[in-house]
Amino acid sequence: MKDKIMETSIELFGERGFLETSIQDIVEANGVTKGTFYYYFHNKEDVLMQIHLTFIEELLKRQEQILFANGVSYKEKLRSTVLMVIKNIRLQAQSARVFFREMRHLSDHHTAKLLPKRHLFQRNVQQLVEEGVRAEEFRKDLRADMVSFGILGIVNWSYFWYEPDGEVSEEELTDIYVSMMLEGLQPPRT
Amino acid sequence: MKDKIMETSIELFGERGFLETSIQDIVEANGVTKGTFYYYFHNKEDVLMQIHLTFIEELLKRQEQILFANGVSYKEKLRSTVLMVIKNIRLQAQSARVFFREMRHLSDHHTAKLLPKRHLFQRNVQQLVEEGVRAEEFRKDLRADMVSFGILGIVNWSYFWYEPDGEVSEEELTDIYVSMMLEGLQPPRT
Repeated sequence: MKDKIMETSIELFGERGFLETSIQDIVEANGVTKGTFYYYFHNKEDVLMQIHLTFIEELLKRQEQILFANGVSYKEKLRSTVLMVIKNIRLQAQSARVFFREMRHLSDHHTAKLLPKRHLFQRNVQQLVEEGVRAEEFRKDLRADMVSFGILGIVNWSYFWYEPDGEVSEEELTDIYVSMMLEGLQPPRT
Repeated sequence: MKDKIMETSIELFGERGFLETSIQDIVEANGVTKGTFYYYFHNKEDVLMQIHLTFIEELLKRQEQILFANGVSYKEKLRSTVLMVIKNIRLQAQSARVFFREMRHLSDHHTAKLLPKRHLFQRNVQQLVEEGVRAEEFRKDLRADMVSFGILGIVNWSYFWYEPDGEVSEEELTDIYVSMMLEGLQPPRT
């Protein structure tokens, strides 16, 4: 039931917004009583926090599976990370919208708990770049922190425009982005 | 006075959010009467629309100055476009936050007027890429539309994390991003 209430809340927060959704709306959409709601959550902001936590912890788990894999090049790890985020759009587009848009409605207490997890996702990408530099798979003359923000920008922005059922598949988009990141837009020198 | 009301509203919408800000808050922050407010705006959503329009029209104007310049390579035009957006963060960070976060509070009528302008900004970047491909400055094997979304992702994401007064200057960040976009992260082949 907790999962069902969260799923419905993701839909409501994503479509109408956090402020525009009441606990009454949430219980009605689930056909349950307020008693059931308060059995699982302290208040509406608690639901928002659970949505944020679930979203980022799931991404971190999958990111770490990629980063800690053995016998895989850093270029391949970069590709797997990009593909993971792009594929996540189909699964979690509505959660992501709530994640990127509604964080300021979290309490300071919750924000303080969440921000380190958001930063860890970025730090992990930065570490991937740094290790790839040491392995001579990536250039060493670009700041790894700024490069990691560039990579995150490309992939995270996709949440705002990419249609997984459109004419470009998740793999095609990943190939274009990874080729752009690794080889750049200039024609190869001949 | 209209500009002053808009500036104050950008601050209020950016800090508190559109829904959390009342017309009463806006007139108090400006030390004017509601009569003055209604002389310039129909309602609160009208202010939001003017903020959105001013933001995107200013960016489009500067983008077109860059794109239509004569005797400038497409690589240089790409660099100027990136620098223009990065520099805009200092000038318009709060407007941008309102722009990216509060669009769903616009009426359908206003959204229909605004979306083509947002799309034009993307189409202009796409056109820059396409013309650069024809001039053999950029690779021809990557879809220009997807590449344009990648470029926009890198620069637009900066609004969410970049501190113009931090340790990386606007020019340095632009150099890193343009080098990443043009030359890629792989070490040059020797």
